[in-house]
Amino acid sequence: MPLYGGIEGGGTKFVCAVGTGPDDLRREIRFPTSTPRENIGESLAFFRQATDELGPLDAVGIASFGPLDPDPRSPTFGYVTTTPKPGWAHTDFAGEVRRALGVPVGFDTDVNVAALGEYRWGAAQGLNTFVYLTIGTGIGGGAMVEGQLVHGLMHPEMGHMRIPHDRTRDPFRGACSYHGDCLEGLAAGPAIEARWGMSPAEMPPDHPAWALEAEYLAYGVVNLILAMSPQRIMMGGGVMEQKQLFAPLRRHVQELLNGYVQARAISDEIDGYIVPPSLGNRSGVLGAIALAEMAARAKS
Amino acid sequence: MPLYGGIEGGGTKFVCAVGTGPDDLRREIRFPTSTPRENIGESLAFFRQATDELGPLDAVGIASFGPLDPDPRSPTFGYVTTTPKPGWAHTDFAGEVRRALGVPVGFDTDVNVAALGEYRWGAAQGLNTFVYLTIGTGIGGGAMVEGQLVHGLMHPEMGHMRIPHDRTRDPFRGACSYHGDCLEGLAAGPAIEARWGMSPAEMPPDHPAWALEAEYLAYGVVNLILAMSPQRIMMGGGVMEQKQLFAPLRRHVQELLNGYVQARAISDEIDGYIVPPSLGNRSGVLGAIALAEMAARAKS
Repeated sequence: MPLYGGIEGGGTKFVCAVGTGPDDLRREIRFPTSTPRENIGESLAFFRQATDELGPLDAVGIASFGPLDPDPRSPTFGYVTTTPKPGWAHTDFAGEVRRALGVPVGFDTDVNVAALGEYRWGAAQGLNTFVYLTIGTGIGGGAMVEGQLVHGLMHPEMGHMRIPHDRTRDPFRGACSYHGDCLEGLAAGPAIEARWGMSPAEMPPDHPAWALEAEYLAYGVVNLILAMSPQRIMMGGGVMEQKQLFAPLRRHVQELLNGYVQARAISDEIDGYIVPPSLGNRSGVLGAIALAEMAARAKS
Repeated sequence: MPLYGGIEGGGTKFVCAVGTGPDDLRREIRFPTSTPRENIGESLAFFRQATDELGPLDAVGIASFGPLDPDPRSPTFGYVTTTPKPGWAHTDFAGEVRRALGVPVGFDTDVNVAALGEYRWGAAQGLNTFVYLTIGTGIGGGAMVEGQLVHGLMHPEMGHMRIPHDRTRDPFRGACSYHGDCLEGLAAGPAIEARWGMSPAEMPPDHPAWALEAEYLAYGVVNLILAMSPQRIMMGGGVMEQKQLFAPLRRHVQELLNGYVQARAISDEIDGYIVPPSLGNRSGVLGAIALAEMAARAKS
């Protein structure tokens, strides 16, 4: 019976787990994101103790914040590259884990890995082309196209697409330090908070912030539909905990497309087309287990 | 020695060819797009005569305007589906050719097939993730991701992405009958002509239309970079015959990304990143030959 380790290295917290899937997670730990030395050390200590108790791991999967290098043919494969996060730039994340544990290590962006988790056990099962978006302190997106996680030149950075911004209606300049009013700059949690002077978590469901939020998110979703023709879009993250966002978002997507993409999934079945991730906030760590499974298979 | 047929069925003209690649196109014909009966009839007559002279074809590849069904598992595979083009809606384009000639037939969007042509013999050789955009009477895009042409739910419709539009600077409302001021509505040939009251073909290279055009195209390109992380973007079509567009377009792309995607291809080598298709206006018909090659291989 194989056994896998997963690391979800997020911007604010780490989650590590050992197991084989959603019904078989035998150990789990979480700790705040700090320095690579501390976080990788804590992860390795956790895996070593789990190994003592449960037996050896076959592989480890790592879902990491980026930017990072997910290309196995690259000399810097497995590195977190140019992040502004203190201490993390140019960290050989996957290499350190591989050398310490002596097992194959899979490595990809947190959002690609969450997409993989949903593909393996969640709302993307049976599909081959889909998008996983997370709307929280930032906006990120992972995707599978024709059965392959998307990397290309580096990896997608969907949150930074440019969308229409009517400054007459919404004079807020945008909160992205690189782009001002890109999608993330207009619609991630910090943008909502800066625009309205109130934490999104404290806003009632009928606060006008949510109507505007649904419009901005719809622009992003529409652009992704037109760019890569996904069979489904999963939307998670802290902001999407506001479940009242889904109905107006779906309606805006239909209105913006205006019948141009003639697909029943969009015209008639949009409630099943734009959906929350069915693994909830466990897409990432379960995706890391699925990535470990792939890494083990690739080596055998 | 194998022999392939290719059909490029475009919005205004058809091109059919027989051969094996760019250095070996043995017969070629072009005629205006009219009705399916006429155009498919002309194509078949051309292939029959070529076959009499050159020997049997191993397969045919069809690059078609859309919307269409490129999914081989679908009952309507090979159909042009809901096009407003008179007579073409619900036409079994690939099926008619397959039944008449008795050979395997590949079928995909004109832009995906042009992307394939560039991959096989042109500017995308050796890449696995790239975009082919055409800017002409409309704006369309095809893409390969991790070695597979993108289909997903249907196929991409990149020209209809929404981008920022500053109505103070450019009060033109947009020319897209579905979306008004989407990318195509702002930047395709008819939009340029309607905005300035002059055919783009007659505009001098220093006409202010081109500066604005480069800005709009840059928004589209940036969104595609962020959505799917292509290793290269090829830009063809009638509007891109204005070669003076490339320099400001590349500069705007760098400015809009503002260093966020840290890849040398963009920061240092953008002249090789955003490029004209190296097959020029032959990407489509040569892509159709490459598609035939794939269809023959799939059957053998």
